[in-house]
Amino acid sequence: MFDLYIANKNYSSWSLRPWVLMQVLEIPFKEHLMPFEGGFGASHDTFIHFSPSGLVPCLVDKTVDDGLAVWDSLAIIEYLAEQHANVWPSEKAARAWARAAAAEMHSGFGALRDECSMNCGVRVALNSLSAKLKADVTRLDALWQQGLERFGGPFLAGAHFTAVDAFYAPVAFRVQTFGLPVSEQAQAYAERLLALPAMQGWYQAALEETWREPMHEAETLKNGTLSADYRHA
Amino acid sequence: MFDLYIANKNYSSWSLRPWVLMQVLEIPFKEHLMPFEGGFGASHDTFIHFSPSGLVPCLVDKTVDDGLAVWDSLAIIEYLAEQHANVWPSEKAARAWARAAAAEMHSGFGALRDECSMNCGVRVALNSLSAKLKADVTRLDALWQQGLERFGGPFLAGAHFTAVDAFYAPVAFRVQTFGLPVSEQAQAYAERLLALPAMQGWYQAALEETWREPMHEAETLKNGTLSADYRHA
Ligand SMILES: N[C@@H](CCC(=O)N[C@@H](CS)C(=O)NCC(=O)O)C(=O)O
Ligand SMILES: N[C@@H](CCC(=O)N[C@@H](CS)C(=O)NCC(=O)O)C(=O)O
Repeated sequence: MFDLYIANKNYSSWSLRPWVLMQVLEIPFKEHLMPFEGGFGASHDTFIHFSPSGLVPCLVDKTVDDGLAVWDSLAIIEYLAEQHANVWPSEKAARAWARAAAAEMHSGFGALRDECSMNCGVRVALNSLSAKLKADVTRLDALWQQGLERFGGPFLAGAHFTAVDAFYAPVAFRVQTFGLPVSEQAQAYAERLLALPAMQGWYQAALEETWREPMHEAETLKNGTLSADYRHA
Repeated sequence: MFDLYIANKNYSSWSLRPWVLMQVLEIPFKEHLMPFEGGFGASHDTFIHFSPSGLVPCLVDKTVDDGLAVWDSLAIIEYLAEQHANVWPSEKAARAWARAAAAEMHSGFGALRDECSMNCGVRVALNSLSAKLKADVTRLDALWQQGLERFGGPFLAGAHFTAVDAFYAPVAFRVQTFGLPVSEQAQAYAERLLALPAMQGWYQAALEETWREPMHEAETLKNGTLSADYRHA
């Protein structure tokens, strides 16, 4: 059984990726939720005890050596793909597309990540969209549409939820929180992701978290106004 | 045979990654060098004709469908790994470590990438190291030392050059250009990379490029002073 270290469900977009994939594929794991201790980088000294980079997510496989740590979301997914079916699409061209799209998310979409940080429980009216954010949303929309059309949907690379959907799962929460202006097709895809039982499970847990981290809250509102907060406490 | 689209060898760190891996593993490919047309993002409208993200590197496999484009360095490497031996280490724990270290480079080391952009042909004396750059260099050094010790060297994940070394190959040029303060062990590793015939081939081609891109040149010097320029023209 795997151990998966994650941070607050309300905020931690990277944590969501392997978590939701493992839930959907029914890969058993024990969750360790480590709340953030402050703004970006502040938890390093705590996280370093289980994650060599001081970042989450980190998967630990206790069956290998003294415990093998895999400390990055994409590396975790490739680690799982070696041992479990259906992590990536089975068809070669779909798999190549899915890997490229997931990797583009992994190192790109900087404005989307910076200006629309994940905060599942709130809704925010953006004052305006920067040129960089607009470019990211345009690219996102084109990419989603391309996948949905080329592989026939309802998921990005075809009939099944795979790792590329897991990589864009946090974006579905961002579309919801910030009401990002996407096409009808992209909006419908985001809603499909949000409706998955695993996503609903994450969301409900996020709403129940009582812990607020001031720097994450400020980050969410740096370019907008709070319009709703559905968190329970 | 693969087609690999890259940009200027002097500047394009992402392009170097799959290029050097394919050279070392002797995977045949046809190189298409597309010079940058300006600062970051300026080549988008040209690159989009072969790369769906408008970025390089992009691998095109003409044997699949009408030509399958794989548009991200890490996705290219996984695509190659499905068809070629020795892209990743053969031992499971080393492979997981290598993937995590490569993924960390793919989405991290922001200060190193920003403040020490790759410019193979020049040498720069940094005025000072920012706190973020120091943190990146510290982490880099720890990561390299961990790999070298744990898997026995001379490469990061053991006896052979694999994709994780390809991912850190541009960092070896940065260590050289900016004289980054790393441990003796890390310095020796960087020099080992620089001495590889494939790296020497890239470096010589970079020195021979006559084309200078002003924004890349300015970026290189934004926090330092030029101390040497070995480019031929
Ligand atoms: N590229 C990494 C990114 C991981 C990352 O940035 N994680 C954040 C949380 S989502 C973190 O651990 N931050 C620690 C901190 O804020 O102290 C991955 O894909 O796993
Ligand atoms: N995450 C991408 C990054 C690719 C990237 O940023 N490429 C740069 C050059 S190294 C680029 O194509 N820039 C286009 C431009 O500057 O117009 C990868 O790993 O391939």
